[in-house]
Amino acid sequence: MSAAVLCIGTELTRGEIVNTNASWLSEELTDRGIEVGAIETIADDRPLIVETLHRLSAKHLVIVCTGGLGPTTDDITSECVAEALGVPLVRDEASLAAIRTRMEKFGRVMAESNKKQADFPTGARVLQNRKGTAPGFQVALGHAQAFFMPGVPREMKSMFGEQVAPALEPFVKGQMFQVRLKTFGMTESAVNDRLDGIEAEHAVTLAYRAHFPEIEVKVLARGDNCADRARTAADAVITRLGPDVVYGEGDVTFAQQLGKLLVERKLTLAVAESCTGGTVGRLLTERGGASEFFVGGVICYANRVKEGLLGVPAPLLAEHGAVSAPVARSMAQGALAELGSDLALALTGVAGPGGGTSDKPVGLVHFAVASLAGISDRQMVFPGSRTQVRDLAAFAGLSLVRKVLLHGHDA
Amino acid sequence: MSAAVLCIGTELTRGEIVNTNASWLSEELTDRGIEVGAIETIADDRPLIVETLHRLSAKHLVIVCTGGLGPTTDDITSECVAEALGVPLVRDEASLAAIRTRMEKFGRVMAESNKKQADFPTGARVLQNRKGTAPGFQVALGHAQAFFMPGVPREMKSMFGEQVAPALEPFVKGQMFQVRLKTFGMTESAVNDRLDGIEAEHAVTLAYRAHFPEIEVKVLARGDNCADRARTAADAVITRLGPDVVYGEGDVTFAQQLGKLLVERKLTLAVAESCTGGTVGRLLTERGGASEFFVGGVICYANRVKEGLLGVPAPLLAEHGAVSAPVARSMAQGALAELGSDLALALTGVAGPGGGTSDKPVGLVHFAVASLAGISDRQMVFPGSRTQVRDLAAFAGLSLVRKVLLHGHDA
Repeated sequence: MSAAVLCIGTELTRGEIVNTNASWLSEELTDRGIEVGAIETIADDRPLIVETLHRLSAKHLVIVCTGGLGPTTDDITSECVAEALGVPLVRDEASLAAIRTRMEKFGRVMAESNKKQADFPTGARVLQNRKGTAPGFQVALGHAQAFFMPGVPREMKSMFGEQVAPALEPFVKGQMFQVRLKTFGMTESAVNDRLDGIEAEHAVTLAYRAHFPEIEVKVLARGDNCADRARTAADAVITRLGPDVVYGEGDVTFAQQLGKLLVERKLTLAVAESCTGGTVGRLLTERGGASEFFVGGVICYANRVKEGLLGVPAPLLAEHGAVSAPVARSMAQGALAELGSDLALALTGVAGPGGGTSDKPVGLVHFAVASLAGISDRQMVFPGSRTQVRDLAAFAGLSLVRKVLLHGHDA
Repeated sequence: MSAAVLCIGTELTRGEIVNTNASWLSEELTDRGIEVGAIETIADDRPLIVETLHRLSAKHLVIVCTGGLGPTTDDITSECVAEALGVPLVRDEASLAAIRTRMEKFGRVMAESNKKQADFPTGARVLQNRKGTAPGFQVALGHAQAFFMPGVPREMKSMFGEQVAPALEPFVKGQMFQVRLKTFGMTESAVNDRLDGIEAEHAVTLAYRAHFPEIEVKVLARGDNCADRARTAADAVITRLGPDVVYGEGDVTFAQQLGKLLVERKLTLAVAESCTGGTVGRLLTERGGASEFFVGGVICYANRVKEGLLGVPAPLLAEHGAVSAPVARSMAQGALAELGSDLALALTGVAGPGGGTSDKPVGLVHFAVASLAGISDRQMVFPGSRTQVRDLAAFAGLSLVRKVLLHGHDA
């Protein structure tokens, strides 16, 4: 039993946008135990679309398609499906009324071109679009069930979750349950090696999703007691990787989990960022509710800001240089004092691409966490581009905060 | 004349990573005037790979393929190409020596599994990999020239630029020249409408690339005097969109262009960020050399940081609330004074998803730019998610700095 994902749009074959729909849909299908055999992306080209639909429907039982449902002349998916089926398009008056109502709600008049969005191949089941004007539809194409959805990710995701996923249930063999573990601090291949044998031992499937610099480990169990078995296997994964690597479960971010820990302990955090230039602050405030634990920070890019706002002594900067453990410690202590938080994280490093020396190479970052109870510092050399160095440094800095919260300062 | 992009890897069909290679390669090919007819992504499955190679080579003159060249057992691209060609694999001793040398350089010993990375289909032209161990190769497959490259984006991009692109030159008909214009402040459809007629008038092709919240406009001319014609058409685009929308050309960022303008005028910038939480600082320091114009900033998430570090008066906060024009102005003036810069940008808003009221809805952002010459402020309501509101606010704030630099403060 396999599925195909088909993405239609010349903007995709020209590389004008990155196709995030394909990976999102492939993950959703894989998570449901439906194997994705092929992902194809083709231009808005009628013979090509018709031929591709025939070819995919001969090989797969499910086809999930995005794109080409808009109002413009290059949106031809519905026509092509009708041609592939050998049936005419018919107008669905209920859909037409829904499109008109939606446009009026946003103060717009329905253009003639929008009317074709209510035309579907005869016999199609209409899939409503709660987030936009273009409805989708489902048809039987040969032996395959084919689902057609808009290309706009927000509209597609909503339609998939509400209307396509339930229709896929007959294709999913038996019960299944998945636990998603979020990790930071190990490479994918190291995680993979460390988890060797878990699949056989617990009769589960492990899968990974990379979202730099994090790795998500997905633990999937099928059949009887799948929820219990997935949980037991997930606990075994946590034991193998360690609780410092596995920071949370489900749809949580690293910063959010750290924030939760701070809120539980009624503690607040401030930052002093040099090389990361605001990256840590951005991460800490990515989700709502950050004001419960984050007071703010100082982006001390210039040395005189380190001196003026954080009170780093000029002689310390002169003696050790801005990228040094003493300066990182002084920055953290300054942020603690000036921002009045319970903890403060400071980062200073050489993000590159220029500015490296043999003593202080590109990628070197010093970071420190200060609290009223003491101070801890670390230095690391991160690989990769300027952006990668900055992102790794930000995560490593937040990791040190987590470590101090869980285990206290270095002896 | 069309090309196919083929991406091989079960991590892609399972949706474990987003396929950025496909869009990058499609854009590179399109920019060279080579039309991409299909993008296919398939699992590490031998019969499927062989069948797909046959099918694509019957329809396209160029096949550009990524993935499956690594050392592990699921890396089978070379074997599959050999099978499709009906030839054996042969070991290339020069490649084997290069792999060994590269691994020794990084202090690693070549494993037995790495040796197969030096095996190529008989008759293949080896493509060297300067960024990793896996070499690529080129073969003639039916009427098509097929190029096989590693899936790691950094290695693939380097190999494509240095070895694949030159080999594609015979496929590019005639001369061509492209000007890439970077824009911010208009939607893609608004840009599209505004540029109606340019293509016919100047005999050029316009293409777009969306990178939220920016739009890149690509002006492509072919044939005689293509460089001059592309330039003339690009100037017409700039005139139509206006110099406030078109901020630069080529591989530049909005923040980098603003930095250049500041450096030219020997001016420095500081920021005071509330709702954006460090986003503006991160953007300003994304490329190296930012220390020439950016001194730093204060992330004043909590009101007491607005008061303590920026000197925003408590009664002002009490009277108008943190999200207000008077507070944005006071934050900008405080940053100017405390950080000693020539200009300061302040942002305060409701990023959402919670916290909105009828007076101050989610998406409302007040921003202000202060200098010794005066102060300007704006308020906008941005649509979208929390992340989109923050990113749009950061760009709009930097836009106001640019406006003040180019046109002075509001009267």
